[in-house]
Amino acid sequence: MKIIGKALKNIPWEEKPEGFGGVVWRHSGNPIIDWNPTSSTARVYNSSVVPWGSGFAGIFRADHKDGKARIHVGFSDDALSWKIEDEPIQWQDSDGKPYQPNYSYDPRLVEVEGTYYIIWCTDFGGAALGLGMTRDFREFIRLENPFIPFNRNGVLFPRKINGKYLLLSRPSDSGHTPFGDIFLSESSDMIHWGRHRRVMQKGGSGWWQSVKIGAGAVPIETTEGWLLLYHGVSGTCNGFVYSFGAAILDTDNPSRVLYRTRDYLLTPERPYETAGFVPNVVFPCAALTDADTGRIAIYYGAADTYSALAYAKADELLGFIKANSELAAGDSEEYR
Amino acid sequence: MKIIGKALKNIPWEEKPEGFGGVVWRHSGNPIIDWNPTSSTARVYNSSVVPWGSGFAGIFRADHKDGKARIHVGFSDDALSWKIEDEPIQWQDSDGKPYQPNYSYDPRLVEVEGTYYIIWCTDFGGAALGLGMTRDFREFIRLENPFIPFNRNGVLFPRKINGKYLLLSRPSDSGHTPFGDIFLSESSDMIHWGRHRRVMQKGGSGWWQSVKIGAGAVPIETTEGWLLLYHGVSGTCNGFVYSFGAAILDTDNPSRVLYRTRDYLLTPERPYETAGFVPNVVFPCAALTDADTGRIAIYYGAADTYSALAYAKADELLGFIKANSELAAGDSEEYR
Amino acid sequence: MKIIGKALKNIPWEEKPEGFGGVVWRHSGNPIIDWNPTSSTARVYNSSVVPWGSGFAGIFRADHKDGKARIHVGFSDDALSWKIEDEPIQWQDSDGKPYQPNYSYDPRLVEVEGTYYIIWCTDFGGAALGLGMTRDFREFIRLENPFIPFNRNGVLFPRKINGKYLLLSRPSDSGHTPFGDIFLSESSDMIHWGRHRRVMQKGGSGWWQSVKIGAGAVPIETTEGWLLLYHGVSGTCNGFVYSFGAAILDTDNPSRVLYRTRDYLLTPERPYETAGFVPNVVFPCAALTDADTGRIAIYYGAADTYSALAYAKADELLGFIKANSELAAGDSEEYR
Amino acid sequence: MKIIGKALKNIPWEEKPEGFGGVVWRHSGNPIIDWNPTSSTARVYNSSVVPWGSGFAGIFRADHKDGKARIHVGFSDDALSWKIEDEPIQWQDSDGKPYQPNYSYDPRLVEVEGTYYIIWCTDFGGAALGLGMTRDFREFIRLENPFIPFNRNGVLFPRKINGKYLLLSRPSDSGHTPFGDIFLSESSDMIHWGRHRRVMQKGGSGWWQSVKIGAGAVPIETTEGWLLLYHGVSGTCNGFVYSFGAAILDTDNPSRVLYRTRDYLLTPERPYETAGFVPNVVFPCAALTDADTGRIAIYYGAADTYSALAYAKADELLGFIKANSELAAGDSEEYR
Amino acid sequence: MKIIGKALKNIPWEEKPEGFGGVVWRHSGNPIIDWNPTSSTARVYNSSVVPWGSGFAGIFRADHKDGKARIHVGFSDDALSWKIEDEPIQWQDSDGKPYQPNYSYDPRLVEVEGTYYIIWCTDFGGAALGLGMTRDFREFIRLENPFIPFNRNGVLFPRKINGKYLLLSRPSDSGHTPFGDIFLSESSDMIHWGRHRRVMQKGGSGWWQSVKIGAGAVPIETTEGWLLLYHGVSGTCNGFVYSFGAAILDTDNPSRVLYRTRDYLLTPERPYETAGFVPNVVFPCAALTDADTGRIAIYYGAADTYSALAYAKADELLGFIKANSELAAGDSEEYR
Amino acid sequence: MKIIGKALKNIPWEEKPEGFGGVVWRHSGNPIIDWNPTSSTARVYNSSVVPWGSGFAGIFRADHKDGKARIHVGFSDDALSWKIEDEPIQWQDSDGKPYQPNYSYDPRLVEVEGTYYIIWCTDFGGAALGLGMTRDFREFIRLENPFIPFNRNGVLFPRKINGKYLLLSRPSDSGHTPFGDIFLSESSDMIHWGRHRRVMQKGGSGWWQSVKIGAGAVPIETTEGWLLLYHGVSGTCNGFVYSFGAAILDTDNPSRVLYRTRDYLLTPERPYETAGFVPNVVFPCAALTDADTGRIAIYYGAADTYSALAYAKADELLGFIKANSELAAGDSEEYR
Repeated sequence: MKIIGKALKNIPWEEKPEGFGGVVWRHSGNPIIDWNPTSSTARVYNSSVVPWGSGFAGIFRADHKDGKARIHVGFSDDALSWKIEDEPIQWQDSDGKPYQPNYSYDPRLVEVEGTYYIIWCTDFGGAALGLGMTRDFREFIRLENPFIPFNRNGVLFPRKINGKYLLLSRPSDSGHTPFGDIFLSESSDMIHWGRHRRVMQKGGSGWWQSVKIGAGAVPIETTEGWLLLYHGVSGTCNGFVYSFGAAILDTDNPSRVLYRTRDYLLTPERPYETAGFVPNVVFPCAALTDADTGRIAIYYGAADTYSALAYAKADELLGFIKANSELAAGDSEEYR
Repeated sequence: MKIIGKALKNIPWEEKPEGFGGVVWRHSGNPIIDWNPTSSTARVYNSSVVPWGSGFAGIFRADHKDGKARIHVGFSDDALSWKIEDEPIQWQDSDGKPYQPNYSYDPRLVEVEGTYYIIWCTDFGGAALGLGMTRDFREFIRLENPFIPFNRNGVLFPRKINGKYLLLSRPSDSGHTPFGDIFLSESSDMIHWGRHRRVMQKGGSGWWQSVKIGAGAVPIETTEGWLLLYHGVSGTCNGFVYSFGAAILDTDNPSRVLYRTRDYLLTPERPYETAGFVPNVVFPCAALTDADTGRIAIYYGAADTYSALAYAKADELLGFIKANSELAAGDSEEYR
Repeated sequence: MKIIGKALKNIPWEEKPEGFGGVVWRHSGNPIIDWNPTSSTARVYNSSVVPWGSGFAGIFRADHKDGKARIHVGFSDDALSWKIEDEPIQWQDSDGKPYQPNYSYDPRLVEVEGTYYIIWCTDFGGAALGLGMTRDFREFIRLENPFIPFNRNGVLFPRKINGKYLLLSRPSDSGHTPFGDIFLSESSDMIHWGRHRRVMQKGGSGWWQSVKIGAGAVPIETTEGWLLLYHGVSGTCNGFVYSFGAAILDTDNPSRVLYRTRDYLLTPERPYETAGFVPNVVFPCAALTDADTGRIAIYYGAADTYSALAYAKADELLGFIKANSELAAGDSEEYR
Repeated sequence: MKIIGKALKNIPWEEKPEGFGGVVWRHSGNPIIDWNPTSSTARVYNSSVVPWGSGFAGIFRADHKDGKARIHVGFSDDALSWKIEDEPIQWQDSDGKPYQPNYSYDPRLVEVEGTYYIIWCTDFGGAALGLGMTRDFREFIRLENPFIPFNRNGVLFPRKINGKYLLLSRPSDSGHTPFGDIFLSESSDMIHWGRHRRVMQKGGSGWWQSVKIGAGAVPIETTEGWLLLYHGVSGTCNGFVYSFGAAILDTDNPSRVLYRTRDYLLTPERPYETAGFVPNVVFPCAALTDADTGRIAIYYGAADTYSALAYAKADELLGFIKANSELAAGDSEEYR
Repeated sequence: MKIIGKALKNIPWEEKPEGFGGVVWRHSGNPIIDWNPTSSTARVYNSSVVPWGSGFAGIFRADHKDGKARIHVGFSDDALSWKIEDEPIQWQDSDGKPYQPNYSYDPRLVEVEGTYYIIWCTDFGGAALGLGMTRDFREFIRLENPFIPFNRNGVLFPRKINGKYLLLSRPSDSGHTPFGDIFLSESSDMIHWGRHRRVMQKGGSGWWQSVKIGAGAVPIETTEGWLLLYHGVSGTCNGFVYSFGAAILDTDNPSRVLYRTRDYLLTPERPYETAGFVPNVVFPCAALTDADTGRIAIYYGAADTYSALAYAKADELLGFIKANSELAAGDSEEYR
Repeated sequence: MKIIGKALKNIPWEEKPEGFGGVVWRHSGNPIIDWNPTSSTARVYNSSVVPWGSGFAGIFRADHKDGKARIHVGFSDDALSWKIEDEPIQWQDSDGKPYQPNYSYDPRLVEVEGTYYIIWCTDFGGAALGLGMTRDFREFIRLENPFIPFNRNGVLFPRKINGKYLLLSRPSDSGHTPFGDIFLSESSDMIHWGRHRRVMQKGGSGWWQSVKIGAGAVPIETTEGWLLLYHGVSGTCNGFVYSFGAAILDTDNPSRVLYRTRDYLLTPERPYETAGFVPNVVFPCAALTDADTGRIAIYYGAADTYSALAYAKADELLGFIKANSELAAGDSEEYR
């Protein structure tokens, strides 16, 4: 039960605390990004990072002090202490024309064949997926929106499968969306998308994911299949609670769910998770992995205010998922 | 100002009533399909027809007496009196496996290069577009769903443009959808869809279309551009009211709206339109055209209960649209 | 397949119209009670009748011209033409103290062992079941409310089963209740009720009953079991539509559903059903039966405005139910 | 019990139908204005009329075929057959600058000391009262909006009382307003308004007025006080129902309610009242009176589609109100 | 002003803090049960305890890490430090068949004549009262559900009154229930329930209880009547706030309220009450009492996350309730 | 860029913390009023203060322990430590009759020509503006309600402009009001109000003010115009977030906005702002100013629970507003 991928010697890491019973544990220095990290921004969270050169690069959701969400680039030596630019990313279209979305949030960042793709939630007459790319974290090219509205939580696979790009997404409505399942779509050209399949449904098992679910970090390839960290939402009389769990998808056909955690892996417990701009949110958007040691560092947004970090070991986590799996009715069948 | 297309000598037709001031007038024998047209079905409406052999074929939304909507095939000699099959269409997948959607409604029917495509609203974990084809109205092949949920009112263009299939649709939510604009997407293979553009917005002009809009009949090619009949919805304290109007889209780039009626062309006035399963609905889904005479016969559902017919003359209608046009802010710009 | 019960020679009756395909057909003189039937009342509907002396007696929901619903007594020679009192029923408690509910509506009327019980929807800090009795339709004794709020559509069985009174009801909320299933409860003393079981669920089969269901007329004993006429509700973007269907419940254990119509038996089609105070309602509350001929006369409210009548033959109706039955998942299991 | 005012010999009139039990009866030729009365307009209703020269003038709500409501002027010889202008009223500000509200609806028209005031519902960042005047029905001067949003159903008294103009209104919200009481305000200059008092509350008596109420026609001065026709609304699972009743307000202090009908006077019963753009609406906005004979002709909108007429005799109507009155708790107290 | 009951020498206790002005004060070691108290459970709260042997037993609501609520048994020596089983209670029916509710929450635990009854919120086609018993906290027998849905907050009296079992409950809807009063029902056999009375209404006095109220701990018998701790809910723009107060019910007819606190006794102030899975909740479910000293230890859930404890002295509390009482209109009358 | 006004030597003050980047900073001793400040009150917040004698006086919103909001008077020597009376203000009408509103909250306090006016939110058949005055903080005279419902956040200007009193307000609905703009009205007599103008719209710039806005502290006269501190609200899936910003209004015509902050000045970040009775609220209601030094002390409510204080310097704040201004479309035009 191992990660298939590269080593990452400088992955941030802390060993599991003595006596801790779970398989995902929090970084002791959380939150790693606090209120007002740059002069124009109030909150940086729900963001994504990758190894870059000898250090790390990231694409960050930054809520500005005017309240609007935009995405920024940032860099770090140790993946803990981040230098985030004060200005949003300046996009250009493929033909070089400047482009700026009205708002942009919850970015994911994926390397596929040497190109870094960014998928975010953009304004396309309502919430929809925006798509762009960079090769150097300086020039950012905006591509075609992959879908019509309404959609959020788009996550690209880190390599082509059967010669196709694959994209997870979560069809939504134009508001706070009290429902939502994860779908998979494929493309040869990153422009035209089809062969859509529903992968996983809300309410799979347990109430922590009974309202809606959405893909979190980029899927991690393992000997057991693709490890997908995803968020699940339950509804209370005082609002939504966002937790996260994990699933294992079939290596060659990731629309097939092999295993899926019945229990959440992390739920809001700490003050920086239960209070803030949106109380009671833990929202994973990225993971760093070291294939040599099986170490996984999970980046998650907390309370729509803070950036935080949690750790897991691949073998232990995969073992837990397999041993504690409960699929939703229909999760294992092709649904189209 | 003419239709570009084929002659249709046996198009149903009535001249405009003496003294009538509008450009679209009702068939005197409305409704042409009343309650309980077959033994298993209660209501047949929101349906589409095409010339077929020496007569006509149609794909009909039929609400069964169990309340569920399914689509049926039917035939007619005069396009007024219809023989609708009592059993729903039996679909098969491309590989011959039988397929039956959980529900299916509001079908559009389009001939493209000799193949008859059917686009309907299907259940794909919520309302979404279903796509299928037939060549003989006996064997029906189901194709890939073009989009992930939630979507309704999918209408295909009757020919490729710049080598691409083009599909209009109306992104929705999973309920009664109190909003909605018309989008356009393109494809080379009828499987992968991309380069999505917003074509027209609700609330373009006047309140009759202030809640949502959706494409109606298959676009009719004319010397002025594509003539699109579409429905618009206004909200009252006692529910929605569905009227219909028309737009002219650019021939080569139909995401560009050239003209769009400020006033509705038809609104619910008659008893069979103001009372029924859903009061106050006129909902166009098909049109027959005779290029020689410019006659247009518009098929529309009435009160989600009846099938009805209205008439227009192409030159008069196009002239009216151009003279009474008012675009919504942004309708004329590329929006993606 | 026969009714078990008494003959009723003077049951109102019309034969099925030539060529009519269904098993329930409308009275040709509908509505039998029109607007403003008495000087203080505006609308009389959702009401119940029984044979009484040489004629018939009834308990009627009457919406007064102040808009409030009250229940009235009425009498008829032929069960078609009704003389309804202008004043509401004056209740007294068992100890003779006068009692008047704040409002009262949708009464059912059942003879059990020579006593006529009336169950209505009353105000008990919100909608709840009211219960009363009469032996002569002149003196009306109010009994204990059988349940705490919120509840509607209470229907008593016409005889004890296994020595117990049995009561069907539909738990509700305090508003327009967008959900609702039928439950059964038993009692030895008409005061304390227990051994509650869920009998049937909404959404059993077909969309006509997907929002909520509720018992209609008093169950009719037959050789196949108890014949229960019930209403089902579907939701549209312009409001609820009330249709009705039927079920057969086990003779000795009526919490067991044996058969249940997949299709509705009657849905709002006529002007007096599709327009009125509440458009699109047919709501059965009573039935007269003649065991000798199998004739059934069904009384139903139309559009919360009119009283109307429909007919069926027992053998044909029971045959239809058995041949067109589809239970909801769990309908056949004991659910408590 | 008489009207205090002028004679109006040519008031439209029909005697009460034989055997009719109520005190308000419908005109036999209803509706007096049907669908599409002018070439640009679809529906004319909720409008006001006054004697003018040897005939009559009126200010009409006209829903245009673009769905938007505007107000138009019209003239008639007999107050039954109306010639309505196809173009909306062109307003100017007091300083002669042209002014056009975004929308305008439900106008009332009142002569005070030789000037004709028009109060309508205007767009002032949401629904609010617009105010204007004319002396000749050709030139229309727009005055200051009397209140900040949100408000509807403004009705001016036809003479000053204690030297002040008096204005009834119904504070609202920015949507369909599921609540609403009638208030009174005073002014010396038609610009500054104050000493606001609540006159009457919804839910006064009976359910027909349990959701909201609003002043209808201009108050009619009588020997018993001011006769106010007002609408009341009840809520059903399929929408609102608008009926109308009447109240008598104190002559010198009209914030004091003396009597108020427990029962409605008219409720939607006829097809032109129960079906149309908004089903189930009767909405009075004007009355003509003949002091000599006590004849009252009430103009009301039907189903937000038609204009209709009903009749009453002053002595009989006042007698009925006094005999069937039921105040809401607090209606008789000064509430500020 | 004393408790009528047994001594409980080992009741947990802390004296009132110096200078504290109220009559209920918090335990200094709150919360007594924190996050993740057992390996499968996340949150334990809204739970009930009784003296048992030389120590204490309890029935606990435990939200598992799959998000679902179940009830567990637990034991303690000092009623402060609890050992809760990791597995939910395994129920059996009276005939020994295993039974497991779909979910179960907010249990109350009452000894009546040597039997320990448990009333919880169960799934009976929606939220309803579940009822069970144990004599040894090892074997748990499930009994008939006392009511049809929808209901919550069932609390049994600790002894029969006039030979009958008495049960308080709070009729609800199937969702978050924005209303709710306390009712009382009686039974001879714990199966059939009747003679329902409304005891207390929401909004009795003050806004802290204006949305809904529900019985909390088992009523405590005192020389003044039954002391009932109950929760009350107010609504803010950011959700519900749960506080608690107390009432005194008539000893022989507890449907009669004698006194009821105008002010709350405890409202969420501390971090463990204002933040957590559901912010701003204090929810009492149990009380231990020592008749000798008048000490009362109140167990309450905090923020749907923690178990906490507060203290009061009977004489002081009863005196406060009597001196600060304000009944709701109608609270003192029999309402059925 | 200076304040036009009086010196206030004893204004509370702390210098800006080293390295702090903003122009408004928090008092280090926040909150200055904590839970339960007097024996009958639970929370004191959203309150107003003025210099009085050698010290300060204030009018405070106090939520009593019965949950109801009332306004109280209080005094302080240093404007930090407040002695608030335990009893609400006792009002009398101009004619000496005692008057007590049902509830009263969010008071503003303004000196105009030696009289202290109090504007609060009162119950006038729903939320409306209450108005009163005092000259000595002992006797309080209640004046006419300036407007009909529904309204909140009324703020009077501290001097007449062009001979008129000017009043800012925020028209509302009867509930939690998910919309709202600031209007200005004028009066000669404090009784009749007119010439209403819309000053500023929600959504001016940035999302922090996209749901609604409302005037906060009394406008401060400066050499640049009137400095208006106002709150703005954004909506999240877990409720509203209240921040505050500032605008500069034209000195002679304050319905004209000259500048308006694009970014908020303060947003809930601290525990006493993000948790409490209503989480995530900072709500300014008053400011003290020292014209000599340009010091401004801003009083704001935190989490509808605490009173807190923040500081700014006039020149720096005015410079910031001018440099970071973004008007809403239409803000600069006269809108009536």
